[in-house]
This record gives sequence, structure tokens and C-alpha cells, in this order.
Amino acid sequence: VGPGEFVAIDRIQHLLAARLGAPPEGETWVGDDAAVVQAPGGPLLLAADLVVAGVHADLDLEDLDDLGWKSLTVNVSDIAAMGGVPGHALVTVAGPPDTDLGLLYAGLAEASDCWRCPIVGGDLSNGPVVVVSVAVTGSMPEGRAPLLRSGAREGDLVFVTGPLGAAAAGLRALREGRDDAAAQALAARHRRPEARVAEGLAALAGGASAMIDISDGLAADLGHLARASRVGVDLDHIPVAEGAMEAEALAGGEDYELVFTAPHPEAVARSFDAAGLARPPLLGRCTSRAGQLRLGGQPLEASGWEHEWRWGD
Amino acid sequence: VGPGEFVAIDRIQHLLAARLGAPPEGETWVGDDAAVVQAPGGPLLLAADLVVAGVHADLDLEDLDDLGWKSLTVNVSDIAAMGGVPGHALVTVAGPPDTDLGLLYAGLAEASDCWRCPIVGGDLSNGPVVVVSVAVTGSMPEGRAPLLRSGAREGDLVFVTGPLGAAAAGLRALREGRDDAAAQALAARHRRPEARVAEGLAALAGGASAMIDISDGLAADLGHLARASRVGVDLDHIPVAEGAMEAEALAGGEDYELVFTAPHPEAVARSFDAAGLARPPLLGRCTSRAGQLRLGGQPLEASGWEHEWRWGD
Repeated sequence: VGPGEFVAIDRIQHLLAARLGAPPEGETWVGDDAAVVQAPGGPLLLAADLVVAGVHADLDLEDLDDLGWKSLTVNVSDIAAMGGVPGHALVTVAGPPDTDLGLLYAGLAEASDCWRCPIVGGDLSNGPVVVVSVAVTGSMPEGRAPLLRSGAREGDLVFVTGPLGAAAAGLRALREGRDDAAAQALAARHRRPEARVAEGLAALAGGASAMIDISDGLAADLGHLARASRVGVDLDHIPVAEGAMEAEALAGGEDYELVFTAPHPEAVARSFDAAGLARPPLLGRCTSRAGQLRLGGQPLEASGWEHEWRWGD
Repeated sequence: VGPGEFVAIDRIQHLLAARLGAPPEGETWVGDDAAVVQAPGGPLLLAADLVVAGVHADLDLEDLDDLGWKSLTVNVSDIAAMGGVPGHALVTVAGPPDTDLGLLYAGLAEASDCWRCPIVGGDLSNGPVVVVSVAVTGSMPEGRAPLLRSGAREGDLVFVTGPLGAAAAGLRALREGRDDAAAQALAARHRRPEARVAEGLAALAGGASAMIDISDGLAADLGHLARASRVGVDLDHIPVAEGAMEAEALAGGEDYELVFTAPHPEAVARSFDAAGLARPPLLGRCTSRAGQLRLGGQPLEASGWEHEWRWGD
């Protein structure tokens, strides 16, 4: 989402809170990667995201199966960003009658299979463009509380689950019509992003204090985490994916790596080792300058595209 | 959905089953009002429906708050049709930047408040028309199994929770530009349908064997129930709402009353009495003629609009 949408979402949050009241103790509604509600068996995670052809996906550059894959995977990523495990998915699709539903659902089913998140229901409608909305449930490992954006503390270290910018570089390669092997590998990162479920669980087990997935770009998403946690972040290192530019790593978005904070780097290393995962690169450290991001000592602006929403009259 | 969409949904169901396998014992995936999955605390109900401006809602005849109300209520109705209680809702909205989100969310919040189903998350995107997709969770009263479409048996009686056709008659009144008191009351039934949660619970408590909500019209929806249960239905009475025509009661759709089958009419009467609800009218009886609907001895065709979907090449 762009900044205009953040404003709209903030207003929606206020309208809903005025009407519905605050969440009960132990629940988190609008404002984190996934909502947390209490169910008889423990916390239930709920996330929903939208993929609109022409807005989030350019069907000249990727196919309907890629769009299907992405629409489910971004929701699984929201569950992963809570330290959770995906449960089940609901899929609604609007599109013109000539939409190749077989191709779209092939990509949805592949992602569903890959992330062990069965599609159990949904709806289908005529509509002017392809709009895929997916809702996903998730659960936490027994006895564990979800990892919110708001738990980071001054002094916590900041990690990311992998190098950044590959998705943006892949989109650039697609737009430039490059089809060498390197370009194809990058393009695959744009068309078929992965959800870091195992990494999210390892971060949780390693004592992470806060976590978010990188959908809007490192700077923007780390900004959300910093504001929610009322800390600043000083970055001294950005791991840039091979073939990507630093600007793409910082602001590109859609990498769906997880960025998390944790007080004890040894515990993080042990936990990722135990899971057979590469140790996550260290980016920097949380400071007391609430909401302020700096890279190499210089202030960092969260960038994004502007999009104005009307609100009332 | 129209018959073309039933075909597409059937194909999707086969594609997903081929890839994901059959649901585990005790779960119901695509094909009922809501999906049933097993969670640590008991069955979890999951439903998702789509409302597209220009397809399901004519914004010349109803406002965005009505569209918001309807998009949440139809999902709560799916939970009610399982004999369940709504839990939480996720809402995704695509629309042009000049969409009045305040009005849309006012209707969503009203419905959320009315059905005690808090909106806990969602997403927002730019898009060419307003598309609202809502996913809702639900739970069953302690120890009770969800009421599927497939449980009706020969000899069971068929009940409906109220007279039918008001929503279709209301749409007609709106199209004709009528604004007398009677027309306004009917129009309200079109713009602000109600979910029969209390009635669904009473049907469950009264020993109902199968249930479905009437979204596509009595004939179409009772046809789904009859096919799923492998019974026929002989109707001898259709309760027509005041101001509606019999054709509207039979095929109008969007009434969101519940139609259910039950073996013991006294138990149904007792249960609705105990809940302080009007006793549901008796429509007819289940027969051994699998999938066949008859009204007054004559075969009844399920009607609906045709809409062709492309499937592969």
C-alpha cells in the first residue's frame, strides 16, 4: 500500500474502533501483519490481502498462475510475520468471463500445496478486471504468543531473513525484456515470491521481540515496526541481492523477507542453525529515537507511491 | 452465482482436490455454505463472499453503505446456514480513488456491530470498480456438529425461516422508482438483508438435518440441498412475502432466509418457541426422487442467469 492508503486505513481503523470498541485483552485487530483473536484452542491468526490485475500485477509481464501464486503467498507471509503457521485459505475471484480460471487456480493450488495451506472455500464473480482476494488463518506453536510489530526495545538487534531487492530487480528485468539466466532468476523472485514460514518460526524460537514482512520495502516496513514499537533504528548494513541495486533493496518491496528484532544474537544464531537455515544478516540496532530510521548515520525516508482516497464529503 | 459459475466452481473443486487431496475426516471444504475445518477448540467455520458493484449491487439504486452492509451480512448468513455463530470478519476493498470509503465502511461497521462479528483486518487497493470481499469465521454451539446441505433424509419435513420474495420485490420497486411506504419497506429488504443467526441456532436445536441459506432463490438453493442429500423435495406451499410475486418468492434470491429439513416438526416448533421466534412455515417434504423438486405435483426448474466462464484453452 502507498501512503495515501495508510491514511485511509488509519481512518477506517478509527471508524471501526468508534463503532466496535477496542479489541479484548490479548487480541490485536487492524494494524499488524495479521489479526490475532482468541479461540478456544489458543490464538487464531487472520490475514487478508488483495491482488488486483493492473495494480499489483502486470499481466503483460506475468501470467495468471503467477498472480494466483502471489495472492496466496502474500497472505501466508503475513502469518509467517507473526511467527505463525498457516492453516486454511479462502479465495474470492472477480474477473471478466474470458479469465482463464484454470491457470489462475493452478497457481493458487501450487502455492496452497507448497505452504500447506489448503484452499477450503471462496467465491467467484463476474467483474471488469481480475481481483483475487485471499484470507488465511494461522496458528501459533503451542504456548507461544504472536510476534507483533510493537515489541522491539532499545538495544535490540535488527535482522533480515535474506538479501533484498531481488523482486524489484526482477520486475525491472521483465520490463527491460531481458531473458538471460540472471534476469530469469530475478524475474522468478518477482513472479513467485516465497513466504518465510520456517524463518519466522526460527526467529520466534530465537527470542525475537518484533517482526514484519517486507511487502512495501525495507525502509517503509521497518518504519512501521519502529513506530509501533516506539523505537528508532540505526542501520549500518543492507544486504543487497545479487543483480539488485541498493535503492531496490531499500524501497523495492515485494521481497517478503522478514525483518525482526531480537535482544540476543547468539539465541538467533542457535535457532536458525537448529532449523537448518542460513543465519540471518544483522542490519543494525534499535535506538531511543522513536520512529526515526537512519542508514550510516543519515536519516532515511520511507518512500512509496502516493494514492489519494476520498473520505466522506 | 449463476449456472455457468456452478460449472466453474465444480471444475475448481476438482482441480483443488487433485492437487490438495480430500479433506481430512470431519472437515468439509468447497461446496457447502461455509467450510468446516477442525481446530483445537472444535470445528471452525470459514466463509468468503464477494460483492461487485455493477454485478451484485447497482449503485444507482443503493448506496455504498448498503453494499458494505450486504457484503458482510451475506457471509454471516453462510455461517448461520451451518447452525453457527459468527466470529470475526476480514474485509478487502478494491475501488477507484474517489470511492467514499467512509460510507462503505459505515455500512460494514453497522453490519459488523449488528451481527456481533468484529472486522479485525483486511486490505485496501486501487481498482476500476468497487469490489468488496469479506471472509468470516464462525463457531458451533458447544458439542454440536455443523449442519451440512447433505443431511436431509426421505420423509424429513422442509421449513423456511420466513416468507420469500421481498428482496426481489424491493429491487423491482427501486427500479420502478416507487417510493410509497410499502415500496420503501420492500426496498429495505433488498438493501439491508438480514442474516438469520438466531433462526439457524433454533433449527439446529430443533433437530434440523440439513440447511442452506437462500441467496440464489428457493428453487436453486433447495436444488443444491436436494442434490447434496440425494433426496427429492415435494413442495406444497410457498410463503410469499407481502408485496412480492410468487415467481419472486421462488426464484428471486437474496432473501437470505434459511431453508432446512427436520424429521420432527414438534421439536422444531418447541425450539423456535423457546427462542422467542415465529414458528417457521412448512413448505413440504423430502422424497426418494433424488434431486427432483416438485411444486404442487409439477416439476420445478431451478432458474438463474447464465454466465460463461473460460476454463483453460
